[in-house]
Formats: sequence, C-alpha cells, structure tokens
Amino acid sequence: MDDVIKLSHGSGGEVSRKLVEGMVESYFSNDVIARLDDSAVMALGESGGRIAMTTDSYVVDPIFFPGGDIGSLAVNGTVNDLSMVGASPVGITLGLILEEGLAIADLNRILGSIRDACREAGVPVVGGDTKVVEHGSADRIFINTSGIGLVAAGLDISSSNAKPGDVVILSGTIGDHGIAVLSKREGIDFETDLVSDSAPLNGLVREMLRASGQIHAMRDPTRGGLATTLNEIAAASGIGITIDEGSVPVKEGVSEACELLGLDVFYVANEGKLVAFVPADEAQAVLEAMRGNKYGREAVIIGQVGSDHPGLVTLRTSVGGSRLLSPLSGELLPRIC
Amino acid sequence: MDDVIKLSHGSGGEVSRKLVEGMVESYFSNDVIARLDDSAVMALGESGGRIAMTTDSYVVDPIFFPGGDIGSLAVNGTVNDLSMVGASPVGITLGLILEEGLAIADLNRILGSIRDACREAGVPVVGGDTKVVEHGSADRIFINTSGIGLVAAGLDISSSNAKPGDVVILSGTIGDHGIAVLSKREGIDFETDLVSDSAPLNGLVREMLRASGQIHAMRDPTRGGLATTLNEIAAASGIGITIDEGSVPVKEGVSEACELLGLDVFYVANEGKLVAFVPADEAQAVLEAMRGNKYGREAVIIGQVGSDHPGLVTLRTSVGGSRLLSPLSGELLPRIC
Repeated sequence: MDDVIKLSHGSGGEVSRKLVEGMVESYFSNDVIARLDDSAVMALGESGGRIAMTTDSYVVDPIFFPGGDIGSLAVNGTVNDLSMVGASPVGITLGLILEEGLAIADLNRILGSIRDACREAGVPVVGGDTKVVEHGSADRIFINTSGIGLVAAGLDISSSNAKPGDVVILSGTIGDHGIAVLSKREGIDFETDLVSDSAPLNGLVREMLRASGQIHAMRDPTRGGLATTLNEIAAASGIGITIDEGSVPVKEGVSEACELLGLDVFYVANEGKLVAFVPADEAQAVLEAMRGNKYGREAVIIGQVGSDHPGLVTLRTSVGGSRLLSPLSGELLPRIC
Repeated sequence: MDDVIKLSHGSGGEVSRKLVEGMVESYFSNDVIARLDDSAVMALGESGGRIAMTTDSYVVDPIFFPGGDIGSLAVNGTVNDLSMVGASPVGITLGLILEEGLAIADLNRILGSIRDACREAGVPVVGGDTKVVEHGSADRIFINTSGIGLVAAGLDISSSNAKPGDVVILSGTIGDHGIAVLSKREGIDFETDLVSDSAPLNGLVREMLRASGQIHAMRDPTRGGLATTLNEIAAASGIGITIDEGSVPVKEGVSEACELLGLDVFYVANEGKLVAFVPADEAQAVLEAMRGNKYGREAVIIGQVGSDHPGLVTLRTSVGGSRLLSPLSGELLPRIC
C-alpha cells in the first residue's frame, strides 16, 4: 500500500480502480454503489419511479482544447454517465473551484460553453456553487458536474448485465479526445482535424432504446480507454469478451499520433463514444438506429461475448493472432478529463 | 467589472453574490435556479413527487480543525442544504480532487469521517469520482458533495416565502465554525471549547416539520454568516427583518475571539445552525420541537418580519439603538468551507 497519493491513482486504470474499490468502497459499501455503474440508480419512495445520479470532477489540462473545453466536457460527461444506465437527464449542478487570478474572460467563455452544451443535451443547470482559492492552490478552474435523470420502467442496463451471446457495438472512432488534449498540451500540431469527440450521447441512447428493449450494458469509454471499460464490464458481468481489432475504427491522424507518442489507442480516453452489449438478434436494429444519429454514424460491431475466460478481454489482432487486452495498469495521461 | 477572479469572489458576500447572480445566472436562468434556495426542487415526471438537488465544493483550510474536518463538513453541508427546503436526504455523491503527495493516512481519516457523518445523517454515498492532479495544482484535497432528497407533498419552504408576521427562530449560537477554523489556521489557541458546530440538521428539521406545517423559509447561515443569510431572505421575500441583537446567542470564547480579531460575529460562518421563518402563532410549537433535539437545544426567537423596509435587515442593538445589518460586502475569511 502506498503512503501518499500518486498521479497514477487518478488514471482510471488498475491502480486507480484499486484505490477506489479498495478504499472508497470499503467505507461506503451499499447495494447501489456496489454496481460501479456510471450512475447510481435508486428507487424513489413509494412512487415506483427510479432516479439515476452521477458525479464527476473535471481537472483537464489545458482547459481549452480542439473540439471543446472543460465546460462542455463536464456537461457532456455527466449527461453521458446518466445515459449509460438509460436515464433521461433531468438536471445538473455546477460546482466551480476557481483559482485567484483566473481571467474573467476565460470564465465567461467556459460558462458560455456550459450553457451551449446544456442546450444541446436539453438539460437545465438547477444549482451551483462557487469557491475561490488562493493563487497556487488550484490550477485555474476545476468543475464538478453532478446530474440526476429518470429511468424508465423495465430498463436494467448495467455493467454487470452483459450476457453470453451479446455482441459488442461501438458508436464510432476511438482515441480522439485523448489525442486532441495531448496534442494541445504538448504543443504538437499533428493535423487540423484532430479534435476531441466530446459530445452528449443522450439523444443517441434514446434512439437505441426505441430500437430495442434488450440493451444489457452500456458504458462510455473515458479515462483508461476502451480496453479498461471492456475489462470492467467483463469482470462485473463474469463473461469473456472477444474483440476483432480490425473492426475498431481509428482515425488516421489519431493512429499516427499514437504511433509517434508510443501510445496504445485502446487506452486513450474518449468523451463522445459508447459501447453497448445487446443480444445478436437485436444488433441490426440497434445499429440502424445508431447510424441515424449524428453521434452514431460510424457504429459497428466490434466483438462478441462468450462464457469462456470470464473476466477477460481477448483481442483478435489484424495479423491473425490473439492477445489479452488487459486493463490500464499505471499512469497514461494525467488530467485528460 | 473585474478582469480576474479575486478571493472576494468566493466570500459568500456581496461581491460573490454579484458574480454568481450576474454571471452564472445570466447563463443558466430558469425557474428552478432563479429561486436561489439551498437546494433546487424539481417535479419528477408524472409521479407527482418532487426531488431536491444540491451541490457544494469544499476547499476548507486547514482540512482538519477542532470539531470536524473537510469530510464531515462536506457531508453535513449537503445534508443541511437539502434539509433547508424540507427534503429528506436520499443519497449523496463524492467528487474527490486529490493533490499528488497527499498522505494516504489523511485520506483514510477523511473517508472515515465522511462515513461516520453519513451514518449519523442516515444518508448513503451512492456514487463518486476521484481525480488526482500534480503536486502544486491543488491544495491537498477538495471535496464536492452533491445530494438529492425527497420533498413531501404540500411543503413549500423557500427563501422567497418569508411573510410579514413571521418570527425568526435561530437554532443556537453563531460564529462557532468560522472561529474554530480560523483559530486552527492562524495557530491561535483561544480556548479548548472553541469547536466547529458542523452537524447534520435533517433530524432537527424533521422534528420541526412534525410540529408545524407552516414553516415558510429556512436557511443555514454558512459563508457570509447570519447577516448575509438574513439579507438574502429579506431580498428574496421582499420583506423587512428586525433582529434583536441581545437575543442572538454567542459563546463567550467566540465573542472574545471576534473582538481580538476585529470580526463581526454576524458575518462569521456556521455549519450546524439554521434560521427558520414561521408565523408567530406557530413559533412556540416549533421552538419546543427544536429544543427536544440535540442540535436545537438553544433555539430562540431572534426577530420579526414586517412589511416596512422591504429587502432590509435592521439590528436593534443591546444599547437601545438600531442599525442596518448589511450583507457581507468583501472578503472576510477565505476557505472557511
């Protein structure tokens, strides 16, 4: 056990997971939190309704990057966490921590971006809180967004519900957000079209739920990337996942940037993509619904679920071999979200 | 208009209020947020139920202080914000921002404190998020707690609902939290009994609601102190408030510390106190209910509401005069919560 917090504790990978599972869960174990889904789902009194709740703090560096900023990222991230359990967003709250000396113009730009993101997602900001700390006690601006949403009767979408016979659908290219932020941070100018995929996915999920009542699991592969998300679902559902590497769409610029930087795109963060686990015979209907939405146009089947190798993710490589796709183990990209 | 964020923007007083009202509200105005209550109250679909939601980020310095720490403070603060609109807490989320190098022992101590505070309030942690930033990019630990609660049918408790004829009830002594934090921060050792009043008030509010269905407004006077809270209620309700200075309980040690430090106790933060506005003929029943709860034992009537001087708070001083009690205007105590 470490004595002090390290950057890797926040990476979204194994070390981070162990910190969260080992420490936080040991203090707060209950039925709701134990599911480790992107949002908690709770029954509401005697009404029969269920509400989803989620929270995320955003510390991304830089605060402005190609395709978005810390404001839109925060709104989209919270909208997406609600969407991943099938909840329709009802309201979000904003907790701002500002560093003394932050330019008011930057704050205005970020608030405008939050407003626009809320409009696109159709969710109101219902409350907020602003704290200011001395220069040097924070890095410009940190944003917490928390959100609640309503879960329709009959839905039970959870990382623990993927089943043998499901296919794995990915909504589009991977790695865009992580590479866009990294290129801006490091001052590397790969290509003009390298932009974050940050986007609200509630509209896409609404279309998917209309097409099928049989979506078993959904997640947006953020910190830790697609590999880590798939591993978490494999572990939570006790199933094995096989992914066909060649079927996973990656933009050419992202692929080149990963090669240059020595990164595996499967571990790079996304902020506007989802993976869905659905029975094979429902897949076509879900795919068609996704492709009709602007955030799902490139949706494809990338793999299958089996009962062999429970808890593991196997990658069938483009050259015909296969290897284990392990979860992110250490530090990859700090402050990517 | 300032160009950069100043510490006074986070003080909870006039400057902070203008920042919040002028900037944030201009971006996000809607019916719910416009009430500026401690929690947002929203109707839930067709069920007829209403849910309250609130968020707060905690950046208190020092993180451990007499009578509490940043963890229990965060839980109690969110429980209290829900309680102030009459909501029963259903769940809270934890957003942790950790500075690289934070001692794991400190984190464990804080998580344990959060767990204990949740137990006392009877509210589960239903979700969380952990981010780690580089050494120097935050100050040890910042905590966001967001919470949701259920609002019983028929309740309409709001800062905008105080009415002429109401009396103002205060649940106990003021200034304890601010002075406890300040004494620890400055290394001043006033007295051993100077401890924060940080406490969950949901049990107290439950007893009050049992005693009377006519509570018009409730607030916990945190940042900006009792004076700022009363001014906000006076403005939101369009009423005038008269406070009898001699009736407001202040511990001797707090009073002495304020004198020594040149602070006006009416502007010092509290974290386990509330003010309630109730019709005069309901006051005795509410007071008795409060005095039966450990967090309301010293509850007293401290003033009345009239229709004269709407938006203003008048203090009848102990020596027989009267003066205007204005809201906090600048910076008093940074990072008090």
